Amino acid sequence: MAQLQRIAIALSQFQQDQILLTPQQIHYLGRVLRLREDDRFIAMDGMGKWWLAQLTGEQAQVLETLSVETELPVSITLIIALPKGNGFDEVVRICTEIGVTCIAPVMSDRTLLHPSPQKLERWRRIAAEAAEQSERAFVPTILEPVAFMSRVNSQESIVKSKYICEARGNYPHLLNCLPKNGKRTNDQELIIATGPEGGWTEPEIENAIASGFQAVSLGRRVLRAVTAPIVALSIVTAAYEV
Amino acid sequence: MAQLQRIAIALSQFQQDQILLTPQQIHYLGRVLRLREDDRFIAMDGMGKWWLAQLTGEQAQVLETLSVETELPVSITLIIALPKGNGFDEVVRICTEIGVTCIAPVMSDRTLLHPSPQKLERWRRIAAEAAEQSERAFVPTILEPVAFMSRVNSQESIVKSKYICEARGNYPHLLNCLPKNGKRTNDQELIIATGPEGGWTEPEIENAIASGFQAVSLGRRVLRAVTAPIVALSIVTAAYEV
Repeated sequence: MAQLQRIAIALSQFQQDQILLTPQQIHYLGRVLRLREDDRFIAMDGMGKWWLAQLTGEQAQVLETLSVETELPVSITLIIALPKGNGFDEVVRICTEIGVTCIAPVMSDRTLLHPSPQKLERWRRIAAEAAEQSERAFVPTILEPVAFMSRVNSQESIVKSKYICEARGNYPHLLNCLPKNGKRTNDQELIIATGPEGGWTEPEIENAIASGFQAVSLGRRVLRAVTAPIVALSIVTAAYEV
Repeated sequence: MAQLQRIAIALSQFQQDQILLTPQQIHYLGRVLRLREDDRFIAMDGMGKWWLAQLTGEQAQVLETLSVETELPVSITLIIALPKGNGFDEVVRICTEIGVTCIAPVMSDRTLLHPSPQKLERWRRIAAEAAEQSERAFVPTILEPVAFMSRVNSQESIVKSKYICEARGNYPHLLNCLPKNGKRTNDQELIIATGPEGGWTEPEIENAIASGFQAVSLGRRVLRAVTAPIVALSIVTAAYEV
């Protein structure tokens, strides 16, 4: 199964056992992936479902529903202060591979970048590509960038596991603060926030704590804004898979 | 202290309380970092020691020895199958930030790239820069690339904690295999190997296991060759800091 190519298909393209392919998808399957008539591929709906499909002209025949076990037992939202430069592309790509559910870019007090709308499209395309490459059943959602304070205040208060990472200050290590295995029955959602170059400001941390976030450390070394979300996500996914 | 600039100084440059700066260092301090006469900076010997120093012409006066607590209580050697393209630059940069002690690039059965000697110099420069940026007291060693098999066979047999990461196969999770806190007294060294695009070959894994490596998983998703070492290192450093 690992050798089959995977592409994302919208649910609206399904008609009974047929998938109506778009011109872009036909081009991608034929010209880029070099599939020929009757070749098989995997259709993903980006929401956790996979189907084995067979190319027949401008459509594809659904052969069977596949079971996938590559997703985490927890939904992880990463709130990330936008780093300067193009570093966010790599963050989106790597975090998608590692298993993120939702990426919420934010502007913080120290954020220099205010991204163009084209950026959001670009990040979503990178997330879709990375989900395919890493055999995920799920394409992460990328939210529109908003101010950090409004994101913190808008996050559902029912989510109990909320963390804000900060290098300075004497906070406990994230790995020590995650809900332990066996105590997770009502903890199917987790939110974690990582800061910009220079870190969060004091008011940002205080506001997040007031909104139910726990301040945590990612270790004693100072990580760049593009590295911190990758390290945080590596720790969370490992803790939930053991 | 966090605001002071840091540069790496060879021990041979120290003469009693003076540091004899090289023309490159004088240029870097003056032109790049914009330091002026009598400004202070941190001199690191790249082996775990920091000094507070003051610029005086073409020398620097050592004012005091600093204590640093940013290093891990374990020495971590990462054996990494060289990925294709320029991805290894980022691996060196990020793994240095996260806290690696030694990076050992290897050619595996499926490695496409055979790096030029210039690459090694480039990686060592990146490691030195990243160590400075992330306030590490230690510049990681980058070994010359060798064949994976010879690296595995040359690693000291006294190192007990040796892991080889592999996506396919039903191996236990790395986080479950690391020595638990309290059982680490004789485990000051750890070696972890991550594979190339397409993974290790069967003979490579068998050979590593025969040399005392334990095969482990980094989770259920398939990670790229450049992502796997970052995830592995994030997990190891977290486990040793809690």
